[in-house]
Amino acid sequence: MQELLPGDQSTFNNLKTKIAEVYHLSGYQEIETPAIERTDILLAKAGGDTEKQIYKVIKTSESADKADQALRFDHTVPLARYVVEHENDLSFPFKVAQIGPNYRGERAQKGRFREFYQCDIDIIGRDQLPIAYDADIISTLLQTFDSFELDTPVLARISNRKILSGLLSHLSLTDKSKEIHSIIDHAEKVTPEKTKFDFEQLGLDQPTIKKLLNLIDLRGSRSEVIAALNNLDIIDPLFLEGVNELDQVLYLLESTGLTDQISADLQIIRGLDYYTGTVFEFILPEHKNIGSVCGGGRYENLASHFTEKKFPGVGGSIGLTRLFYILNEKHLLLTTPEHLIDYAVIPISEREYDEAFNVAAKLRRKHRSTTIVLTDKKLGDKISYATKLARSGIIIGEEEVNSKILKAKDFTTGETTELNIEVVSNPEDFWAD
Amino acid sequence: MQELLPGDQSTFNNLKTKIAEVYHLSGYQEIETPAIERTDILLAKAGGDTEKQIYKVIKTSESADKADQALRFDHTVPLARYVVEHENDLSFPFKVAQIGPNYRGERAQKGRFREFYQCDIDIIGRDQLPIAYDADIISTLLQTFDSFELDTPVLARISNRKILSGLLSHLSLTDKSKEIHSIIDHAEKVTPEKTKFDFEQLGLDQPTIKKLLNLIDLRGSRSEVIAALNNLDIIDPLFLEGVNELDQVLYLLESTGLTDQISADLQIIRGLDYYTGTVFEFILPEHKNIGSVCGGGRYENLASHFTEKKFPGVGGSIGLTRLFYILNEKHLLLTTPEHLIDYAVIPISEREYDEAFNVAAKLRRKHRSTTIVLTDKKLGDKISYATKLARSGIIIGEEEVNSKILKAKDFTTGETTELNIEVVSNPEDFWAD
Repeated sequence: MQELLPGDQSTFNNLKTKIAEVYHLSGYQEIETPAIERTDILLAKAGGDTEKQIYKVIKTSESADKADQALRFDHTVPLARYVVEHENDLSFPFKVAQIGPNYRGERAQKGRFREFYQCDIDIIGRDQLPIAYDADIISTLLQTFDSFELDTPVLARISNRKILSGLLSHLSLTDKSKEIHSIIDHAEKVTPEKTKFDFEQLGLDQPTIKKLLNLIDLRGSRSEVIAALNNLDIIDPLFLEGVNELDQVLYLLESTGLTDQISADLQIIRGLDYYTGTVFEFILPEHKNIGSVCGGGRYENLASHFTEKKFPGVGGSIGLTRLFYILNEKHLLLTTPEHLIDYAVIPISEREYDEAFNVAAKLRRKHRSTTIVLTDKKLGDKISYATKLARSGIIIGEEEVNSKILKAKDFTTGETTELNIEVVSNPEDFWAD
Repeated sequence: MQELLPGDQSTFNNLKTKIAEVYHLSGYQEIETPAIERTDILLAKAGGDTEKQIYKVIKTSESADKADQALRFDHTVPLARYVVEHENDLSFPFKVAQIGPNYRGERAQKGRFREFYQCDIDIIGRDQLPIAYDADIISTLLQTFDSFELDTPVLARISNRKILSGLLSHLSLTDKSKEIHSIIDHAEKVTPEKTKFDFEQLGLDQPTIKKLLNLIDLRGSRSEVIAALNNLDIIDPLFLEGVNELDQVLYLLESTGLTDQISADLQIIRGLDYYTGTVFEFILPEHKNIGSVCGGGRYENLASHFTEKKFPGVGGSIGLTRLFYILNEKHLLLTTPEHLIDYAVIPISEREYDEAFNVAAKLRRKHRSTTIVLTDKKLGDKISYATKLARSGIIIGEEEVNSKILKAKDFTTGETTELNIEVVSNPEDFWAD
């Protein structure tokens, strides 16, 4: 599990706060489900590896067989349960944000932890959800990355799974759909020759392989990619629907001035199932080896395991714990958030404690972060402690109390600013010259 | 477990943010330990009921007997482990804040949940920690409650356990110390006659009982209570130390202008062990039946279970989940935080979607929270949806696009404000008259 020292924790919390702010700015309502859910609810969706990685939760007095609760491993399953449970109290489309830790007992590896923060946004419709909402999700996530002020660009690679599915239908390959999706999903991690070989192994003929390779090679601006797709002259309705949806999403993102940060990219698949339309993935093009730093897409039905009702949705997720690890490792945070506080008030002796508390209280009320150094050490030791925590120090001794003049010394520049102790009594006029 | 609808969640998060802000303003560094800790570490301190309430955590493949991990039940044990583990990377006194959920499998009851947020601050010294820090904890917690803007006053009741311990030593009753502390700890929940009876049952004589009842009846301003304690003419050194410490803490709190919000109160004990000096508890005097809404005190040694080194500390905790429940139930939040966002942009048809995205992006960049209504419903339905989420609506139709004039309509007052669509292109001059 990740555990941070106060300086890094401050940077981490800063990113988390920025995410929450942009999500809120874009009209997503934050909810928080309990970390502990009923196991049968969590397992309704989970399968394979996920199921093995789930942490079950039992009270000391219980036996493990009776363990009917577990820690959530993502935000999607709890969200599905939440939407079904509170349907009548929500307004649809429900734009929702979830920011919090999830738990998977997977083998620890670089940047992957067993407790990890996921920062999700989703838009859930009732019965139907217009395609334009997909653009809202992607633009909000791009704005979130903007707010991080990274020292490297971010690119959203966007596709629509209906295009490939339509092409496979057109090629009468729907029965091999699962295998083909799987090969394309892995294509980026292997050479083009290996992908070609995989297709051959599947028994596809060379013209078909060429069509598939041509498709997944399509990437670029909206105008380029949409023109190229139209030039394929495929009249399968699902294919055309996918092209049209992709076109709309890209068009709306261009309308928000994001042209440089988006790319149509037909290689994007995002796993084998779940997503049914729009799919996207963010990368840092200058650091391709990192892989995806954000991803998501459109799903037909959020809560099919819990209800007959249909809740189509679109969503995206930032894996904050892994992202923070990467940004730190690669030094990609342009401005490291300042974890030093504004002031350390340093009374020389106990005789000035009352004045120190008084001054600190006033500084805090004026939203200046302030600590008071109350150790009975030598002044030098007190200042040395203060420089580790604060940008400026305010020493208070007998002289300062008598002269009614306080000096705030900037620990970095050495510059001092005068504060009048009398004026300090009037918070309105605090910052006297 | 508690689960909130978006409006209540917004209020809850607002309180949590205020707590984090005041803690930061007062120079406490926020840390976050994993929710999952090794069971032996958690059990080092826990005993009795707590141990029974611990949630053990096991992977699906493991048997319960091997469960060597569990969910933290408070922030104190993880903090002790953190301080010992990271000692060399921390500056002491270490002023630390922890805000997050803890878990106890206790029987659910009103306002008590199995997942509950605790918001702790602590100051940890190495070898020693001056008494003045106790005042820093209490003043920070009082400022935190101020930031909630409650419709009712808050009072910090403050005592020092050395006073009672010193008196018991003076009365040669140290062997009955545990029982006497227990009776006093419960005295507030029973009649004075019952307390007297409990003392009698313990075999105390009437003069002794009178002295104890007189002591725990002492409450009031610093000057009154300290004078009354001095008038007892007890020369036990622990007693005198306690009186002196209490005096100093109250004096420093008065220096920060908190005289009306504090009361010396010798009835405060805060449980049977752990605390060794200052103890305090916040109440809402107009709602005494609620009991304590915040509490804490001084402890001799944070990490005695993990190390030979001595880490004395002082801390306090706000049980946010229960507090939120109470404040909601009693309607004590003076200003309910606004969970509506600023704007809903409502394009009349798909032809205005691009303009809607464009306007929304600009509003968001100017830190106005904005959603776009993209459902293909009738305008009336779109507006009805918008009023549930936003304070103002901006309808965009053909006319608005042509005239380059947008109107933001306040859903409550009906007032409209004009925005110039051309000017919208220049974010600097956004708010045209």
